[in-house]
Amino acid sequence: MKIDPNWVAGFVDGEGTFYVGVNKNPTMKSGYQVLPEFRIVQHKKDIQLLYALKRFFGTGVVRVNHDDRYEIRIRNLDKLAVVIVPFFKKHQLHTQKKFDFIRFAKIISLMVSDEHLKSEGILKIIDIASKMNRADKIKTLETRKEIENRIVI
Amino acid sequence: MKIDPNWVAGFVDGEGTFYVGVNKNPTMKSGYQVLPEFRIVQHKKDIQLLYALKRFFGTGVVRVNHDDRYEIRIRNLDKLAVVIVPFFKKHQLHTQKKFDFIRFAKIISLMVSDEHLKSEGILKIIDIASKMNRADKIKTLETRKEIENRIVI
Repeated sequence: MKIDPNWVAGFVDGEGTFYVGVNKNPTMKSGYQVLPEFRIVQHKKDIQLLYALKRFFGTGVVRVNHDDRYEIRIRNLDKLAVVIVPFFKKHQLHTQKKFDFIRFAKIISLMVSDEHLKSEGILKIIDIASKMNRADKIKTLETRKEIENRIVI
Repeated sequence: MKIDPNWVAGFVDGEGTFYVGVNKNPTMKSGYQVLPEFRIVQHKKDIQLLYALKRFFGTGVVRVNHDDRYEIRIRNLDKLAVVIVPFFKKHQLHTQKKFDFIRFAKIISLMVSDEHLKSEGILKIIDIASKMNRADKIKTLETRKEIENRIVI
């Protein structure tokens, strides 16, 4: 299967997700863990396409999402910074998802500078992530409140 | 918005639908009407992209799908035969949707030859359409039974 880079951009505009989770994690210096993730979910009938995308990007894990749905996901910061973000800067998205991508890229850039290891950096990241998809918004806003409380104390 | 043809193929692999409906219609010579349709549905926040796709293909109607979702749809047989089918023959799909497209293209070709105006042609079209998406399957299989009954009578 020969995949064109612009096909990938179009497919991701429809099917891809740029996600950043911020979770409490007492083992981290800042008390929080930032988990960026790029993923594409497909019905299992298209699992071969997920493997083709893994070969295309040269990275990623193909695994069950839920029920008869599978996903390719990339969580590795280096791969996100070196492969995924530059790819979507070159091969542009056209849906409103492009704004999620811009925020995602900004967070990756902050993480590459180790900003996520400091409380101030975490707040910056949460502010950006809260403008991404709705599910994140609720979760990250709660976390922001918690961090602010912690900083005041 | 400058749209690359391969981006369109990727986006349609995720978001597009190739659909063929077969409905009773006593005003038609064969007693049935075949309604092929290519459509892309998006949330209203991406309505500008639907208009960009309309400009890209040089055809299509942008309208409400339901609630806050809009669609571009192309039903015109000439446009499907001259614009849409050749486009997706050149810019290949990679998901299992490609098999829906192959069947769609075959039905368009039969319609260009006026096969849908004869009972035998309608049966051929139903056999192909019944292998397309599940919703069609149930409907077209019922119609096939009705036509067979009518031919026997």
